Amino acid sequence: MRPMNLVELIAKKRDGGELADAEIAELIAALGDERLADYQMSAFCMAVFFRGMTSAETVALPRAMLASGDVVDLGHVAKFKVDKHSTGGVGDKISLCLAPLVAACGVAVPMISGRGLGHTGGTLDKLEAIPGFRVDIDIPRYRQIVEEVGVCMIGQTSRLAPADKRIYALRDVTATVESIPLIVASILSKKLAEGIDGLVLDVKVGRGAFMKNLEDARKLATALVRVGQDAGKQVSALLTAMDEPLGRTIGNALETREALEVLNGGGPADVIECTLALGAEMLRHGLGLAEEDARRVLRAAIASGEGARVMERMIEAQGGDPKVVTDFGRLPKTAERVPVAAASGGFVTAIDALELGLTSVAMGAGRTRAEQAVDPAVGLELAVKNGDSVGKGEPLAWLHVHKPEDAHCHAARVARAFTVGDTAKAAGPLVLESIR
Amino acid sequence: MRPMNLVELIAKKRDGGELADAEIAELIAALGDERLADYQMSAFCMAVFFRGMTSAETVALPRAMLASGDVVDLGHVAKFKVDKHSTGGVGDKISLCLAPLVAACGVAVPMISGRGLGHTGGTLDKLEAIPGFRVDIDIPRYRQIVEEVGVCMIGQTSRLAPADKRIYALRDVTATVESIPLIVASILSKKLAEGIDGLVLDVKVGRGAFMKNLEDARKLATALVRVGQDAGKQVSALLTAMDEPLGRTIGNALETREALEVLNGGGPADVIECTLALGAEMLRHGLGLAEEDARRVLRAAIASGEGARVMERMIEAQGGDPKVVTDFGRLPKTAERVPVAAASGGFVTAIDALELGLTSVAMGAGRTRAEQAVDPAVGLELAVKNGDSVGKGEPLAWLHVHKPEDAHCHAARVARAFTVGDTAKAAGPLVLESIR
Repeated sequence: MRPMNLVELIAKKRDGGELADAEIAELIAALGDERLADYQMSAFCMAVFFRGMTSAETVALPRAMLASGDVVDLGHVAKFKVDKHSTGGVGDKISLCLAPLVAACGVAVPMISGRGLGHTGGTLDKLEAIPGFRVDIDIPRYRQIVEEVGVCMIGQTSRLAPADKRIYALRDVTATVESIPLIVASILSKKLAEGIDGLVLDVKVGRGAFMKNLEDARKLATALVRVGQDAGKQVSALLTAMDEPLGRTIGNALETREALEVLNGGGPADVIECTLALGAEMLRHGLGLAEEDARRVLRAAIASGEGARVMERMIEAQGGDPKVVTDFGRLPKTAERVPVAAASGGFVTAIDALELGLTSVAMGAGRTRAEQAVDPAVGLELAVKNGDSVGKGEPLAWLHVHKPEDAHCHAARVARAFTVGDTAKAAGPLVLESIR
Repeated sequence: MRPMNLVELIAKKRDGGELADAEIAELIAALGDERLADYQMSAFCMAVFFRGMTSAETVALPRAMLASGDVVDLGHVAKFKVDKHSTGGVGDKISLCLAPLVAACGVAVPMISGRGLGHTGGTLDKLEAIPGFRVDIDIPRYRQIVEEVGVCMIGQTSRLAPADKRIYALRDVTATVESIPLIVASILSKKLAEGIDGLVLDVKVGRGAFMKNLEDARKLATALVRVGQDAGKQVSALLTAMDEPLGRTIGNALETREALEVLNGGGPADVIECTLALGAEMLRHGLGLAEEDARRVLRAAIASGEGARVMERMIEAQGGDPKVVTDFGRLPKTAERVPVAAASGGFVTAIDALELGLTSVAMGAGRTRAEQAVDPAVGLELAVKNGDSVGKGEPLAWLHVHKPEDAHCHAARVARAFTVGDTAKAAGPLVLESIR
């Protein structure tokens, strides 16, 4: 075979041609050994944005990206290994309660997560709100923790899907994020590198999510499930609503606390429902349980405290303070909790998750650039959710800030994110569809 | 005005929006001061490839690129200053005879040219076949030569349209060359920086050209003329045929020799016609002459030898050996001239310019990468042109090579580029259309 001309491969995609598996593999390999430059990969990504990818290409790309690095071998873990991935929403702290809870039910959960960027938070930032907690665990220790505790939650290492790391960073600054085959490749190349047997995808839909409408979300979920199954894994997806924030908190320590509340038998109804729905799907893959059976098993693991105990063991194994699980006062917190009052009374009919996510970033809880540090303590706490009634002057939310004056510049923005009307509108279902 | 988010500008173009003049200016300025990375510019170019540009954007882009560097002031030259630019063809040596000839007729020709890349040659490479000839003349000396000799032919300096230099290099390796607004911006930003009053564009059409069909060529020519006129210059374009090579030679010294033949009253009919047609258009802009008058003036400058004398003066001013103009033996040449014989007799009905251009590159006359050196002596000499008859075993062409064995690998490819049929087909016109 003559050496492939990399520019011709870009042109082939640009002109609507279908790249062969070997051609996609060559592009990714060339990126790895510096024969293909970043400016060529970004042009390729833009061509994919416009032309899309065929089914075969969409399967080949994550495989090539997976092959760019190591794949963790979890063969020594006898249990079925299943992970969950969310496409990202505001207030989405589900991984923190879901992973230990599912592990408590006898399925191993090896989870490699990301950091927050843009208006959605990141699991790693939330975990790091736990004093001492380390997410930079090396792979041998990760393998050991998955075996011993049943769950381990770490960050992507440079050896797992390095092509994804590079391409993701490029897409973020070249307006090529919103492309289904590129999203599929990015998610699956990372997740397939973890050593999983199964994967449940939480594809968020709505104003606070990446996918703004059901149709786009369905396309993404279908592609993810198909490509993941094609790679020999048990994969399914739930489409879940992300118009108002999930739960009542946005911000790292605040969200961690809310997730711990769920493990302790409390927490907001929507966070509980999201945890049970995704957990049931994970147990379906891992234990073959029907949905109602799986939900009963999960509820029992909450009631018995077994989920909380697994969380304590994982925190301890990863260098953190396990006492936070029952003593939330050990989490970082701000000195001030400033209310944002309703300008008029009525029923909450909409809460703009995107605006609140962006406000939380502006407060310091998130990042606008990858190299920024986050403040674990700051954030927003919602006093009301969709369908709730609120009186004039009563709080819509609280701003968790270090100094009262820090609240000034954000209060009006938070107030505007709430729509208060005359008639109560029933909140819609959280789980919109499942794709298996 | 809040600082523009560069990624949002890429996304705006990607989504089919129209960028304001200030937004295009900001993108190009950001490239200049390293706020916009190459990988972002290449993604932008790919988005432009798919979305195109509006009339206003197509005007704004070359202006912004022009503003990225200096503009040569030729105000001290009293004559009208007009240049010619060809979009590139195989065997296109027209600039070398055209520029001094037009200068001999009383119009100044400030010409900044490029090097060969891909299957088309470059004027600078052909000029450098002249012993001692320097194309890296600095701008003060260039201004002096234009004034004193009436013509000066140099390479692009780092201070003229540096944004074009950077973007052109990117486009070449990211499959974003074939985009009319990007081509227009590249050509005009360079040409407007030269200090011209007028510009004639030779838009080549056909198998050996960048534009393969008349419709695309017309679009490009129309855009070039419109944007150039919008910048206050006298601009027109000729669409000329590029199916068979222009003239009888492909390769640097061979082509220079053929251009010198024209200045000495000889040369192939198509090279003469192309020179006269473009020259007449330049004199129309510069002296207000009607076409037939202009052609008469140009023919007279050939017959009197005045064109050849101007060429000698320019060569001398640029450090070269002026004696080559009448003594072609001073040009570099190969030891061998190996014939390629016709497998059957008949009439030549087609000569694939693209294939011969690529063969000439493979022989060392051109480049596949920008940093490659070229061999001035090697190349192809055509024994027949479209419509000529050839006997079985008679030469179709000669390979100019250093050693006979160098010819082996190229002879078959050259032979295949000629189509010999039973019936003579009259050659079509060279000038297909003019756009003013």
